[in-house]
Parts: sequence; C-alpha cells; structure tokens
Amino acid sequence: MADIKLNVIKPSVNNMSARVFLRASGLGFTENDVYGQTRTPEYLAACPAHLTPMIETSELPNGVLWESCAIMQYLSNKHGLENLYPRDPMIDSAMFYLIGTFYPYLARATYPALNFPQYPGEVGHSDADAPTKEKARQAAVEALAEPLDVFRSFYIKDRPFIGGDRPSIADIRLAATLEFLAVIDYPLPSWAKDYVAAMEKSLGDAYTEPANDVRGYIGYVRSLG
Amino acid sequence: MADIKLNVIKPSVNNMSARVFLRASGLGFTENDVYGQTRTPEYLAACPAHLTPMIETSELPNGVLWESCAIMQYLSNKHGLENLYPRDPMIDSAMFYLIGTFYPYLARATYPALNFPQYPGEVGHSDADAPTKEKARQAAVEALAEPLDVFRSFYIKDRPFIGGDRPSIADIRLAATLEFLAVIDYPLPSWAKDYVAAMEKSLGDAYTEPANDVRGYIGYVRSLG
Repeated sequence: MADIKLNVIKPSVNNMSARVFLRASGLGFTENDVYGQTRTPEYLAACPAHLTPMIETSELPNGVLWESCAIMQYLSNKHGLENLYPRDPMIDSAMFYLIGTFYPYLARATYPALNFPQYPGEVGHSDADAPTKEKARQAAVEALAEPLDVFRSFYIKDRPFIGGDRPSIADIRLAATLEFLAVIDYPLPSWAKDYVAAMEKSLGDAYTEPANDVRGYIGYVRSLG
Repeated sequence: MADIKLNVIKPSVNNMSARVFLRASGLGFTENDVYGQTRTPEYLAACPAHLTPMIETSELPNGVLWESCAIMQYLSNKHGLENLYPRDPMIDSAMFYLIGTFYPYLARATYPALNFPQYPGEVGHSDADAPTKEKARQAAVEALAEPLDVFRSFYIKDRPFIGGDRPSIADIRLAATLEFLAVIDYPLPSWAKDYVAAMEKSLGDAYTEPANDVRGYIGYVRSLG
C-alpha cells in the first residue's frame, strides 16, 4: 500500500477530481478531511498556498504536492498508470484550458450559490451591491458556453472521452467540474449530460462516491435558498 | 528541422513563454504573428478557443495545440528535452499554481495598464466607474505577494530554479510572467529580481529576444500614459 495521504475538502470539485482519481487508480491511500484547517500553522508549514487537494507522501521532494491536475499527473507517472494518463498532448492542453479559462467563469457563475468566497478583482469579491454582483455572475454564466463547447469540438471530438476510449485524468477533471453547474440549474447541452453519465458509468463507485459529497452539498445549499 | 509553426502575439507573456522555450529547445520552427487575426474563420476552424500561443504540426492528433504550458510539455516529451522538462512533480504543480492562482491576480493587476481587455465577472470588465475599477485592481495587486512568495518558499526553495540547477519550462513560464509587473512598477522582492536575471543570463538570447518584445510594448504603453 502506497503511503499517500490525501487532504481534502469534500464539497469541492477540485478535490473531487483527486478523490475520483485515487479511487480509480487502485493505489492505496488514506483520506483526511481538512475542512476549516487549511490555514493552521501546521498546514501552512507544509502547504504555504493553503490549498486542497494536497497529497503527502515521503516519495515527494518536499513531502507534499497540491494542484489536482499535477497530483494526478505525478501519481500516474510514478505508478505507470498509462490507462489514466496516456501520452496524449490533448490531455495536458485540456487541463490547462480548464484551469485557465473554463474554471474561472464557472467559479464566478456558481460560487455565490455555493456560499464559496470569490477572489480579489472579481465583482463578487468587491463591495458592489447585490444587483451589480448578480449582473457579473450572469456575465460569467453566459461566458461558459463557448469554452464548454471547445471541449466537445476540439478535445473530445468523435471519441467518447478526451483520453480516447477510456476516461483520462483530463476527463476526471472536466466531469467533476461540470458537477457544480447543477447548483445554478445550468442548461448543460445533451452531449455534456451524456459525457458525465458515461464517466460515472465507466468509473463506477470511484466516481459516484466522491460525486455524492458534492451533490449532497449542492442539495444542502439549495435547501437553504 | 521540425515542421513546427508557432502562432504568437508578441506583447503577451503567455506567448513569450512558448517563444523562449522554442528558442531554448534547439528545435526548428517558424513564427507567425497573428495579432488581430485570432478570430478569423480560418483561425477559429483550427483553434476554436481563439488563443495564442498555438502550434501547428502534422505530428499532432488535431494538427494544432494551444496553452503555453501544454505546448512546452508536449514538445519536451516528444523530443526528449529532459533538461527543460525533467521528471519533477514540482514543475507541473508550479505551472498549474501559476495558471490557476498567480496569473489571474497578475492579469487583473496589470491588464488595465497594458490596455488588454479583462474578463466577464471581473470588476475591470464590468461597467463600474473608474475609482471602483482601480480599487479592484489594487486588491489584485495586493493579492500577488502571497502566491509570489510560494514560488520562493516552496517551489524554488534552496535551488536556483524550480527545475533545480537549470531553468525548466516552469521557470520559463514564471520568469516571463514576472515581466508584466514592470508596467505597474510592482516592487519585486530582491529574490525575484535575481531570479529573472539568472533566467536571462542562463538562457541568453533565447530569453532576451522575446522578452524585448514584451518590454518594448510595456515601454510603448508607458510612453502614452
């Protein structure tokens, strides 16, 4: 059993990615819920970026590693998991396009409904009034369609998944991300609904169990509204 | 000579990364300036994300690839450039941390001065008044210090570069990014000044030539102000 400790916050789709990956990988690991603990002196000493998911293993140069995509790349490379991370440049490109373009819009579109904080420089973080914030949120919602369709038209194309016939780490990152859109009743195009369903069918409990934590949180915040 | 065509916009540090990398790689390539042409039907047909840098080569599954970090990963893997992309998980983590956390703040802090557009959901993109936009820009400036220091305290630590003794693709991405901070006279800590100088010294003209396009653009916009 590998000595991998995965530190997570369960309602997060960034974390869901690493949680799905580790379950699908067959690697041994333990999971540690650090909700509310990422700014303790102990956590900051290990991870000055105070981020999750974050893994700890004695095999790493600094003992720890964060960034969901980098964690999946590292563990795939280290343990030869070529089925989850085949040598296909589309996988890396898709992950950077997701982190740099798609996710920022998705975060601005969904974080207010999720009661997650937004970031300096975003309208949702400013002291603008509620209608101004809602207008900015709506602008982010509208901006989602174009990069979402790029996943269909360029990265997935005529294959079932970004990785080809089987889900890759880029697919895990994308499918998990799409889970958040349920909180705003975003009208997912049918290809994207089918894609997430195919991911869940292909990965089984490895997908469903962490997804249920995200879905449960979404159900909880919706019950408050 | 490899049949790599690199499409670029020269004032951009995202593009500078790929331009520095290709010069440092020793691979043959041609460079194509696509300023003002990324939303033509031809460009969109190849790259629906209308992004630069974007490479074209017949060796790619879809013929093209974008995302500066993914381009550097792909070409390093393809051509065995282990000196620029050694198997070190810190390199991938640093690039995702840069794209997901550091760059968004840097963009909000510098794009107004660079006359670059901002994005839906950001104050700089909204119809807020000038003082409100400046306040948000300043919030992004203030947010830069913490992730910048993470590069020092975690990724670089007691080595010269993120990649160790020699610059890696993560170093190219970080050093290029820091070039933009000159447009707002950001007080770079001395380690970061030394780091960029060491990058330029180590890579020579491969760094300086593309950097001069960024620096020239910054000088131009400052001359207007």
